[in-house]
Amino acid sequence: MKRGTSRSGDRGAYAEGAAFVEGEFVPVDEARIPILDWGFLRSDATYDVAHVWRGSFFRLEDHLDRFERGVAKLRLRLPFGRDRIREILVECVRLSGLRDAYAEVICTRGIPKPGSRDPRDCENRFYAFVVPFVWISTPDKQTQGLHATISRVERIPPGSVDPTVKNYHWLDLQAGLLDAYDRGGETAILVDENDNVVEGPGFNVFAVKDGAIATPDGGVLEGVTRRTVMELAADLNVRLERRPVPAEELRRADEAFVTSTAGGVMPVTAVDGSPLGDGRPGPVTLRLRGAYWGLHEDPRFSLPVRYD
Amino acid sequence: MKRGTSRSGDRGAYAEGAAFVEGEFVPVDEARIPILDWGFLRSDATYDVAHVWRGSFFRLEDHLDRFERGVAKLRLRLPFGRDRIREILVECVRLSGLRDAYAEVICTRGIPKPGSRDPRDCENRFYAFVVPFVWISTPDKQTQGLHATISRVERIPPGSVDPTVKNYHWLDLQAGLLDAYDRGGETAILVDENDNVVEGPGFNVFAVKDGAIATPDGGVLEGVTRRTVMELAADLNVRLERRPVPAEELRRADEAFVTSTAGGVMPVTAVDGSPLGDGRPGPVTLRLRGAYWGLHEDPRFSLPVRYD
Repeated sequence: MKRGTSRSGDRGAYAEGAAFVEGEFVPVDEARIPILDWGFLRSDATYDVAHVWRGSFFRLEDHLDRFERGVAKLRLRLPFGRDRIREILVECVRLSGLRDAYAEVICTRGIPKPGSRDPRDCENRFYAFVVPFVWISTPDKQTQGLHATISRVERIPPGSVDPTVKNYHWLDLQAGLLDAYDRGGETAILVDENDNVVEGPGFNVFAVKDGAIATPDGGVLEGVTRRTVMELAADLNVRLERRPVPAEELRRADEAFVTSTAGGVMPVTAVDGSPLGDGRPGPVTLRLRGAYWGLHEDPRFSLPVRYD
Repeated sequence: MKRGTSRSGDRGAYAEGAAFVEGEFVPVDEARIPILDWGFLRSDATYDVAHVWRGSFFRLEDHLDRFERGVAKLRLRLPFGRDRIREILVECVRLSGLRDAYAEVICTRGIPKPGSRDPRDCENRFYAFVVPFVWISTPDKQTQGLHATISRVERIPPGSVDPTVKNYHWLDLQAGLLDAYDRGGETAILVDENDNVVEGPGFNVFAVKDGAIATPDGGVLEGVTRRTVMELAADLNVRLERRPVPAEELRRADEAFVTSTAGGVMPVTAVDGSPLGDGRPGPVTLRLRGAYWGLHEDPRFSLPVRYD
């Protein structure tokens, strides 16, 4: 493939990350998208985020599978095939030189014909960018665990926006987060109309009671880290149920954790200001977290990046 | 104020419209926003659209009032005051030379600090653009009226996203539109969980029965054209009720219309494939449409643009 050529030229310009926009590789802080793209003006877009850890992508194909499913569900068409998309993303990582990175692919509706309101008239767009690895809860913070607040904002329901299509409709999550900060929390967990826990800003939620794990079965993004935890729980003979999880059950859990590509398996040690269990990361959480990071050395899930 | 200077220089470059991005006036097709702006990556933004008709803005201050209320509700802060924002928008119109225009102002969350997930860390951004006037239903099309389809997609409920804050969470509206096209409709009207009519992609909805008008009282954007219709109905002694409007009531209406800055008062003459009344634009609709356009000559609502 054609290697990236930057407007800025030298590798140092990519230290904060690299992007692919409008057919060109650029330093991420120079990356711009057209203001008229309906990906912005209608949030008519889907995306996915994979991560690179110690120089290798983790489960990249699972992320690209989900991305392509989301694209199809929104009736978008990618301008590139799977191989070219993988190449672009790898090239962004290579340009950045980042060994631990957050790698995002995006498909937007694109720009309508002048005056048109018809989404079918648009030529869909593909963008990608790579930035340093993002932690919802840093490793340092994970030793004490996150303090989560159950938000009064309801997550956008599946009847309105399909949550299995990863999307940028985050105003509910952002409002929940601001609400959580106001009430002394460090992150927010949103509920559905029946006061069942759904998800938080960028993560799935798990409650542990008497050694068994429960996580919402619907109305959520089917996270790749969530799936990894399900597979690991089976491997480790830990019971895991996918079913509605009432907010009250989370408040009374022995332990809890959240999962995300942005940080893996992260302990939650307080909900709504009250500690869970003894207020420290729980044993089931720690066991799964260890297994999750251990899995990064498994060649089945690993795509090494060639940096030069 | 400082007059716009374009990267391209000549007025002709602005023929498709003008934008204000990152402190600079540019032709709209050159206008770009940072890919990392959470206005894109979280759709964490609010906006407003006013229109220019025959060289004058219509009710611009009402649009700017609503914009500022939305900004405050999202806990955003505009980097400019009202006077500067008005100046920027007028300058975009002047640069474009457009006598009939669609003029959008946008406030986004902006770019987070590297690695941060905290919306409070962002410096909020202001963008604006002006393009030729947009019609949801063209004047030509209005002589026969729109054929609308009531969508099976539910509008995002107010418990998740406040619909009075004009926002880009349009995946439900776009899905509804594609669904409407599939079923032979020309536009979509979305419902709430109780099967009451809510709104469509960019417009409010009105049903007329026995000379009285009904329009949803909640769960909708409080459109400036909707408000104008309410005021005109009072002036013209036409009864107008703000209350839940069941989808079935719309299907059985004598006439119906939709309202938007993008086209004013526009007749709907068929719902779900069945004509309303005699299948032609109704008398109440036509009377309000005439009054709406007549109001554009009222100096109370008009801000003339100086084009040179």
